[in-house]
Amino acid sequence: MKPVKLAILGLGTVGGGTVRLLQQNAAEMTRRTGRPIQITHVGTRRPRPDLPLSGVDQRDDFMALVREPDVDIVIEVIGGTGLARELVMEAIRQGKHVVTANKALLAEYGNEIFEAAEAHDVHVAFEAAVAGGIPIIKVLREGLAGNRIEWLAGIINGTGNFILTEMRDKGRAFEDVLTEAQALGYAEADPTFDVEGIDAAHKLTILASIAFGVPLQFDKVYTEGITRLTRQDVSYAEELGYRIKHLGIARRTERGIELRVHPTLIPESCLIANVNGVKNAVLVQSDAVGPSLYYGAGAGAGPTASAVVADVLDLVRIMNEEGDGQHNVPHLAFQPDALADTPILPADQMYTAYYLRLDAEDQPGVLAEVTGILSRAGINIDAILQKPQQNGGRIPVILLTQPVLEARMNQAIAEIEALPAIHQPVVRIRLEALDSQP
Amino acid sequence: MKPVKLAILGLGTVGGGTVRLLQQNAAEMTRRTGRPIQITHVGTRRPRPDLPLSGVDQRDDFMALVREPDVDIVIEVIGGTGLARELVMEAIRQGKHVVTANKALLAEYGNEIFEAAEAHDVHVAFEAAVAGGIPIIKVLREGLAGNRIEWLAGIINGTGNFILTEMRDKGRAFEDVLTEAQALGYAEADPTFDVEGIDAAHKLTILASIAFGVPLQFDKVYTEGITRLTRQDVSYAEELGYRIKHLGIARRTERGIELRVHPTLIPESCLIANVNGVKNAVLVQSDAVGPSLYYGAGAGAGPTASAVVADVLDLVRIMNEEGDGQHNVPHLAFQPDALADTPILPADQMYTAYYLRLDAEDQPGVLAEVTGILSRAGINIDAILQKPQQNGGRIPVILLTQPVLEARMNQAIAEIEALPAIHQPVVRIRLEALDSQP
Repeated sequence: MKPVKLAILGLGTVGGGTVRLLQQNAAEMTRRTGRPIQITHVGTRRPRPDLPLSGVDQRDDFMALVREPDVDIVIEVIGGTGLARELVMEAIRQGKHVVTANKALLAEYGNEIFEAAEAHDVHVAFEAAVAGGIPIIKVLREGLAGNRIEWLAGIINGTGNFILTEMRDKGRAFEDVLTEAQALGYAEADPTFDVEGIDAAHKLTILASIAFGVPLQFDKVYTEGITRLTRQDVSYAEELGYRIKHLGIARRTERGIELRVHPTLIPESCLIANVNGVKNAVLVQSDAVGPSLYYGAGAGAGPTASAVVADVLDLVRIMNEEGDGQHNVPHLAFQPDALADTPILPADQMYTAYYLRLDAEDQPGVLAEVTGILSRAGINIDAILQKPQQNGGRIPVILLTQPVLEARMNQAIAEIEALPAIHQPVVRIRLEALDSQP
Repeated sequence: MKPVKLAILGLGTVGGGTVRLLQQNAAEMTRRTGRPIQITHVGTRRPRPDLPLSGVDQRDDFMALVREPDVDIVIEVIGGTGLARELVMEAIRQGKHVVTANKALLAEYGNEIFEAAEAHDVHVAFEAAVAGGIPIIKVLREGLAGNRIEWLAGIINGTGNFILTEMRDKGRAFEDVLTEAQALGYAEADPTFDVEGIDAAHKLTILASIAFGVPLQFDKVYTEGITRLTRQDVSYAEELGYRIKHLGIARRTERGIELRVHPTLIPESCLIANVNGVKNAVLVQSDAVGPSLYYGAGAGAGPTASAVVADVLDLVRIMNEEGDGQHNVPHLAFQPDALADTPILPADQMYTAYYLRLDAEDQPGVLAEVTGILSRAGINIDAILQKPQQNGGRIPVILLTQPVLEARMNQAIAEIEALPAIHQPVVRIRLEALDSQP
């Protein structure tokens, strides 16, 4: 049978890993698909003699590769939203299937990319864009397709989870662990995308879209990083039976969809609270299955290449079919004309429980004033933890509340911060029980 | 677009759940596939007026339904290997696609069923046969298709896991919890299939086949149940930092494939050690991704119906294609002519670590004799736990060993049991670190 011909654009970590994996498991892949797969073209500005690429057409003119008539599938692993976007759009116009690991590109320009793909009758596959080696896109689009997804919550940035794990296990400070993560190569030289939650927001945008059948709306994700987390809060959370994880949460409510990335207290008995180090995990709550969890390596050469290759194998099967390809799994899980215009809720309409830490003067009546404010706002308190006096005669007071509308909590916090005995700002970290209740 | 027509054979828990789920999420499913799905025929001996089946052709002659020319997909949810086998084979001969939740049928007769399906150009889909709502078949056959699977270990029987969880959490005895599980409806009136590991062996047979690309070989699975586990062993394991889980393990070794179901000590820090109650989970070790874990409800109306419906949606997409259907995902993940004849190892060729509990006379030199036997057999000891004297002046001695060939351990245990100071039999429970080492 005629081999399927691949062009790989980019020979960085993921591109190199993909070359190696395709070679390493070539025999098993042919046993699976019944058809050989061949890397015929590679686009790179820095050739890599360490890779098995003899006989492969290697060039630095990426656009010329995309236009090669011989190429069946273009694999975009350059990253970024500049050149990558032009290359993907041109590949689509050339009638080629595309595999991409580029979450930023899809989160920000996916709607136009998928529209073009449908117009040109090609597929843009993107399993590698979210959670690396965990086949979460396939699980949501196909495995759980009989379900109505209610919410999902994911640890979808390995660097952030590594930092939080170290802060908790070793009582280390954020800055300290970040420096080590950079030295270990987990965090980029510019770690902003990781620690400010932008990378997680890109991935959450994609997950929410295929979970709920709505267009990609990256600009509407509420995004809060982990840079302001202190080891004190990590430790107080632990005393109360919680772990702090940086979660991406997408939830369907009656009023609209919540899309949010932020540090979150979750009960330590939850399986996902025990996902440590650079690992990723996504917890999905759906109507027929209830909770299900998907765990594995979220980044790195091998895991990401695994997702790229799984997409290639899916495309090989599609290409083997003589049909018109119009009825394969839709890009965003639902038919393009069946996407919903469900509103994405603004941040003050989110509904969640809270961990509040107040920096209070050690004087009588303070706690009564604070609890009075919360009570008048209709906010129920689940737990109070008052710590001994610290430097300057102040006492840390930690409160866990029941779920409440964020707008109402904003108002209550403003009132608390106005109390003379409270030094602002009040530290707030959201808390999710992650049980089946919405 | 012409609706896809389904015949559901059996209106028990799974059949009823499937009817409800198809109705409940009908609008979302049409948004996904672009094509309506309709239950047109139902086979049942006991009509269920509680189900939304008005206008549906309901009969007790299952064979006649299978032969209905109008039906596109036959859903077999009767169970068993008698009538179900005849119906599935006839559906295939009639050129109909089949969805089945029947692990016993596939584990025992799957090779002939898939061969017939390929000859008649139809698909037999079976996501519901293993781990209920967890889409583990899709994950292994498609999501991890770029990987060489090294091993997998699964909690794939919810009843057994419920019993072990209760024994550990509450220090209860096996018999006591089993009675409760039966009262709660988790365990059948005849719980043999669950507690003797037969149900898990059926599922493991299927998982191993699609993981390694070998024919189904149920009769070669080493199967040991949980009926002889005592709460003492559960508690000693805990003291040593382990939990006992009833695992199905499939592992590729240089000498062949290990297929085994047995109680297993696993480190309590493993995520899968913390999977409790009736939940299922499968841990997969593969070359590109490393470890990944899939967790969720393994049984029940909703979760199993979720898997049945996901299969139906996959088939709807296949039917939409105009191709010949020969190039979709192969039943056993690999092309039928590419299945391997890798041998399945006999039990004494398994390689695993052990928990041994000896019932020893409290006299000098016993421990030296035991450790001498193990040492001469080349078996390394990782931990020893000696408990205070119990009734009759005996002392329980617990040993954890490093991995060793089972044949060698059998010989050592025979020698230990021959010692005058040891009351036989020696209790042995296998132990797996579940790390990435083979």
